[in-house]
Amino acid sequence: MSILAVGSVAFDTIKTPFDAVTDVVGGSLTHFSLAASFFTDVNLVAVVGQDFGEAQLALFKDRRIDLQGLERANGKTFRWGAEYSHNLNSRETLFTELNVFEGFRPELPPAYRKADIVFLGNMHPLLQQSVLEQVESRRLVGMDSMNLWIETTPSELRDVLGRVDIVKIDDSEARDLAGVFNLRKAATAIRGLGPHTLIATRGSHGAMLFSNDDIFSAPAYPLEDERDPTGAGDSFAGGFFGYLAQSQTIDESVLRRAMIFGSVMGSFCVEDIGTRRMERLTMDEIHDRYRALKRLTKFDDL
Amino acid sequence: MSILAVGSVAFDTIKTPFDAVTDVVGGSLTHFSLAASFFTDVNLVAVVGQDFGEAQLALFKDRRIDLQGLERANGKTFRWGAEYSHNLNSRETLFTELNVFEGFRPELPPAYRKADIVFLGNMHPLLQQSVLEQVESRRLVGMDSMNLWIETTPSELRDVLGRVDIVKIDDSEARDLAGVFNLRKAATAIRGLGPHTLIATRGSHGAMLFSNDDIFSAPAYPLEDERDPTGAGDSFAGGFFGYLAQSQTIDESVLRRAMIFGSVMGSFCVEDIGTRRMERLTMDEIHDRYRALKRLTKFDDL
Repeated sequence: MSILAVGSVAFDTIKTPFDAVTDVVGGSLTHFSLAASFFTDVNLVAVVGQDFGEAQLALFKDRRIDLQGLERANGKTFRWGAEYSHNLNSRETLFTELNVFEGFRPELPPAYRKADIVFLGNMHPLLQQSVLEQVESRRLVGMDSMNLWIETTPSELRDVLGRVDIVKIDDSEARDLAGVFNLRKAATAIRGLGPHTLIATRGSHGAMLFSNDDIFSAPAYPLEDERDPTGAGDSFAGGFFGYLAQSQTIDESVLRRAMIFGSVMGSFCVEDIGTRRMERLTMDEIHDRYRALKRLTKFDDL
Repeated sequence: MSILAVGSVAFDTIKTPFDAVTDVVGGSLTHFSLAASFFTDVNLVAVVGQDFGEAQLALFKDRRIDLQGLERANGKTFRWGAEYSHNLNSRETLFTELNVFEGFRPELPPAYRKADIVFLGNMHPLLQQSVLEQVESRRLVGMDSMNLWIETTPSELRDVLGRVDIVKIDDSEARDLAGVFNLRKAATAIRGLGPHTLIATRGSHGAMLFSNDDIFSAPAYPLEDERDPTGAGDSFAGGFFGYLAQSQTIDESVLRRAMIFGSVMGSFCVEDIGTRRMERLTMDEIHDRYRALKRLTKFDDL
């Protein structure tokens, strides 16, 4: 069981009230893949520039991440910079330099075309479509998106939505996408466009899963020390889809457990700047936090 | 087992995108008492004016609410008016006329002085103190407060905090009170001032309970139709303390169940304007929603 994951790998420059890093490996697919690789094999498809060398590749080494699909193009790697407010609850984007990502045309290595789970990272809906067209068989397709595509390419986004099984987006993006403020109504509207399941992440308030007549509310782990929220939603997705990929069957109780693993991975991501926490994370810690979320939400039947 | 509850009874004027009411019975103690009365006897202490007649008293009749402590003073009843934005997520206070509430000096009828649970509603900390001084014996004291008192009477508020067991406030108020943004750290700081337990309500994101080394995260019921959030936090408190009052012992699992009943009562409150939903609510519906919150949060052990 494996995941084919397509999206952006970038150099991130991040300033928080506690720390600052320059040109560290980031991008949504990086966070997704690191998290997912704790659970399953990840076939990564992305583009980087000539400035992306062995030092950067080291982050993915000795993990269950295959880099056959990592294209090295002429030019510079996608760069993104942001600065967080003193409470970490707002951030200002300092710069976005697409560089080689601007010309990204994902091409799947032949070995990737029979996929188990396909994850379409946050990128132009036409790129997401082109990935799906290259996939010959798959068990399940998940996707992410963002306000930019909801606003600028709504019809292309709808086409992709019609072809996927599970969408993971922010609760505010779910509201924007559906044009309805009530989250439950927004979920019904989005599920009406194709996906049988919607996951709405809510930052430090946890995440909700809407599928068929079922709703599941996953808690967020109450961190005592939040350092950098960058990539938390991507880590959530990595934990969620990674857990699904290693499951023989996908039913309601597996989806719920996957939500908890998503919440676990998102919470770890926030504990240090960039990918640092993920780099030193262990499976034991992941299981401990799963159990902590169980204790956090346990209450007796009536 | 009963609750002695002291706070404000008012005439509310509320405008929402869906509905509007003028001079209906409201105030935090009204919402608290209606919710609590589903679980226990409530001894209500508040003040109203000469304009508060039989029509208004009818709301409390045939419920487990004793009105011996409802003083009728010369003058007009406390009046409050507010208008909600189209998504109900912000509100503008249109007017606050304290009227007889300005001169409120709570006086406990002799029968109320041996109390089981004392609930100090949101009011000036000196009034909360004066209530405590009149109580001869009690099992537990709970309190509410708000930003106004955190900002204008911080030292009086600290004195009250030193004498109570459980504080229930908004998460944003908990942050302001502690002067720390991180909710877990804020809870530790507030518990350091006296109360062994802090409940931080988070609107449609649920509520958190912090006590000793224990943290519990209660979900909010995902409503498909939100009509009026006025009094939701008070209804939460009524459900929470009402359930505690009817419990023989108060331990961790009882506190957690009480949180769920709090969330249940808060969710019903929002389903209609003013107290309307509470007026037609049944115990069967309360139990059904408790079970729905159980389903909403259930996931397997590792």
